[in-house]
Amino acid sequence: MKPVQVGILGLGTVGGGTVKLMLQNTQEINNRAGRKVEIVQAAALDNSVLQKLDNCDIKFSTDVFDIINNPQIDIVVELIGGVDLAKKCVLKALQNNKHIVTANKALIATCGDEIFALAQRKGLTVAFEAAVAGGIPIIKAMREGLSANKIKTIAGIINGTTNFILSKMADKNTPFAEVLKEAQQKGYAEADPTFDIEGIDAAHKLCIMGSIAFGIPLQFDKVYTEGIDRITSQDVHFALQLGYKIKHLAIAKRTKKGVQMAVHPTLIPKDKLIANVDDVMNAVLIDADALGTSMYYGAGAGELPTASAVVADIIDVSRTLTTDPKNRVPHLALEPDKIQNTNILNMSDITSSYYLNIKVLDKPGVVAKITAILAEKEISIEAVIQQDTKNISSEYVPLIILTRKVQEKYMNEALLKITDLDVVFEYNKIRMEQL
Amino acid sequence: MKPVQVGILGLGTVGGGTVKLMLQNTQEINNRAGRKVEIVQAAALDNSVLQKLDNCDIKFSTDVFDIINNPQIDIVVELIGGVDLAKKCVLKALQNNKHIVTANKALIATCGDEIFALAQRKGLTVAFEAAVAGGIPIIKAMREGLSANKIKTIAGIINGTTNFILSKMADKNTPFAEVLKEAQQKGYAEADPTFDIEGIDAAHKLCIMGSIAFGIPLQFDKVYTEGIDRITSQDVHFALQLGYKIKHLAIAKRTKKGVQMAVHPTLIPKDKLIANVDDVMNAVLIDADALGTSMYYGAGAGELPTASAVVADIIDVSRTLTTDPKNRVPHLALEPDKIQNTNILNMSDITSSYYLNIKVLDKPGVVAKITAILAEKEISIEAVIQQDTKNISSEYVPLIILTRKVQEKYMNEALLKITDLDVVFEYNKIRMEQL
Repeated sequence: MKPVQVGILGLGTVGGGTVKLMLQNTQEINNRAGRKVEIVQAAALDNSVLQKLDNCDIKFSTDVFDIINNPQIDIVVELIGGVDLAKKCVLKALQNNKHIVTANKALIATCGDEIFALAQRKGLTVAFEAAVAGGIPIIKAMREGLSANKIKTIAGIINGTTNFILSKMADKNTPFAEVLKEAQQKGYAEADPTFDIEGIDAAHKLCIMGSIAFGIPLQFDKVYTEGIDRITSQDVHFALQLGYKIKHLAIAKRTKKGVQMAVHPTLIPKDKLIANVDDVMNAVLIDADALGTSMYYGAGAGELPTASAVVADIIDVSRTLTTDPKNRVPHLALEPDKIQNTNILNMSDITSSYYLNIKVLDKPGVVAKITAILAEKEISIEAVIQQDTKNISSEYVPLIILTRKVQEKYMNEALLKITDLDVVFEYNKIRMEQL
Repeated sequence: MKPVQVGILGLGTVGGGTVKLMLQNTQEINNRAGRKVEIVQAAALDNSVLQKLDNCDIKFSTDVFDIINNPQIDIVVELIGGVDLAKKCVLKALQNNKHIVTANKALIATCGDEIFALAQRKGLTVAFEAAVAGGIPIIKAMREGLSANKIKTIAGIINGTTNFILSKMADKNTPFAEVLKEAQQKGYAEADPTFDIEGIDAAHKLCIMGSIAFGIPLQFDKVYTEGIDRITSQDVHFALQLGYKIKHLAIAKRTKKGVQMAVHPTLIPKDKLIANVDDVMNAVLIDADALGTSMYYGAGAGELPTASAVVADIIDVSRTLTTDPKNRVPHLALEPDKIQNTNILNMSDITSSYYLNIKVLDKPGVVAKITAILAEKEISIEAVIQQDTKNISSEYVPLIILTRKVQEKYMNEALLKITDLDVVFEYNKIRMEQL
């Protein structure tokens, strides 16, 4: 059988890891693919990664199009990152009849529909296991393992940076800013951590999982995101006291009114398995109609874990190079004509229970005023904690309220009225999920 | 495209669940398979399951060979259970050019090599996702998701009955016999629970996972099994006090000396994620060279969870009916000529740390005598607890010892000497894993 020839674009962390892993486990990889698979060519800005490797006869180029236009190449592995150049490379490679493997979540979440349509027309595969939750084979689990199910809910801890920060805040009662600095020193957070902290990275991944789960087009701009930078040590502490951990959760749900897709800090019961996924680890919990709850846990980033997913995709694609495209697993689990445009809910239309941390003057009657406003909006209360003032330097004290489920619209209306009270300084609202 | 015609053998829990799930999610299943897939015929001892269903036009027969010999059938789903008849059916169906889907772990673990060899010669697929860990797509994860990795260790909680019993023993300090009765009342344990309690069911599943992980033939008779019936509430209590939970773990490891495959009660650190997999739930932890630790959690049994795996296999097989067999995923991850017969270790050759519960007379010098014997065999001690006698009615008191790692042969030699001491009545030895 003719060896499968792979060209790789980008030799950063994941690109370097992919080259190393292909060299390290060559025999296993060939045996599992049932044929010889080799990286023959790589393009990057500089050649330092390849120069450090022994026995590496990968041809190097600084021009990605040397690979994309090379008629010998069967599979182009796009590990450049970013959207503009990556998109150009992927579309051109598809036009040149190359299959694609990519780890690029931003590219798939924002341009996936266009890319998959071209691949479909050309009878080619675009594989993207590494784009979601790093090395965890979650795309395969959802698309193939759970193919007999209607998926109801996805709840994922799919950003290692924010999970590390929230874990450390809970463990050691350290404030956000200080843990962020530690994360940056350890290399768990970028110098500019905005993409992670604000939930954009997680939203890219959630968008991809949501499309596969619910058979809908990729609609990244409709995923709601809320960062973790407003979570205080106080919130983490109160949550624990009430039996919850705060996690930066990516949630997609199928509801009667439409699909909910959101990334935000979330209180989850601390005895749930997913609440104990700590540090930089990732996990995705899926609730499906036949299987019930299942969970997939592992390293969501890193050189070799992400390369594990990239190389698994290379093996899958290699094995099916000569397969009738109709016999391959469709990109979003369904053939394109079966993808349906379902309504994505606005956050005001979702239903949730809430944790409220309201900073109030420590005066008689304050709790009565606030709970009266909640009652007016028919919001039931699950628990109230008012901290005594002795450890508080400010004149305002935190009033903690857990509510039962209510449509977010009514919660926001109530909070607008509550902030109008002259005894109230500010509030923090965090959604809760029982999972 | 011609509809894929499926015949089902057996309408027990899983068979009934499979029929129901195919009817419940028909549209999703067809959309994901990219073609119409239908159960057209079923064989069982009686027809009560089908008679209860609305809109069910599945042809019923009491003779399995009506299906196996039906030239219209593409896929035979074997859900009879047991080995003898099931094997006969599967081999005959393969001879008749049918693909096979089965949930039968005993069949695959004991006759898999013969069955796969025939399937290979005929260019057919035998799919068995439901045979291991019920609805968790663990076969797919290992065979495809982790295909770039050298797997080092598998540790699984893959029997719901024993996990339920050990969880309840830990929660409520209830003795084994009492919890077993509760499990039987709840339908979590069979009237004759031997297969579960003694680890034979888990050993079937481990044997299959071990072959896929390490590329070795199926060798069920070489899997060591030890039941949970000797675990006492006292052991569970002492383990917790020392920071451990006791789980009935199925462990496969690649070591320099050979492959270790064993099912036995095991102490694992209580803060590990897998230690918190409770009740009837299953989980498989995999340590692999590129990905590191990953874990797969979900329902390991039950009507619809197991049907979820059976139907996922039906979809996979349906999608690749016309695919060149060389392009399909091999049964044990590798082509048969790449499967290598690696040495399976005897338990005396494995290395482990140990929890010992030794019943001793409460006399001065007893600890010294016992630890001297351990020292003689170069066994290092991690912790010793001697309970005071006030709550013990017997003249013997438990002496609890945690050891560091040692070859089991030397541990057994030491224990032989220890039981020879006239101050020692009996002991319980439980292996430990740090995971």
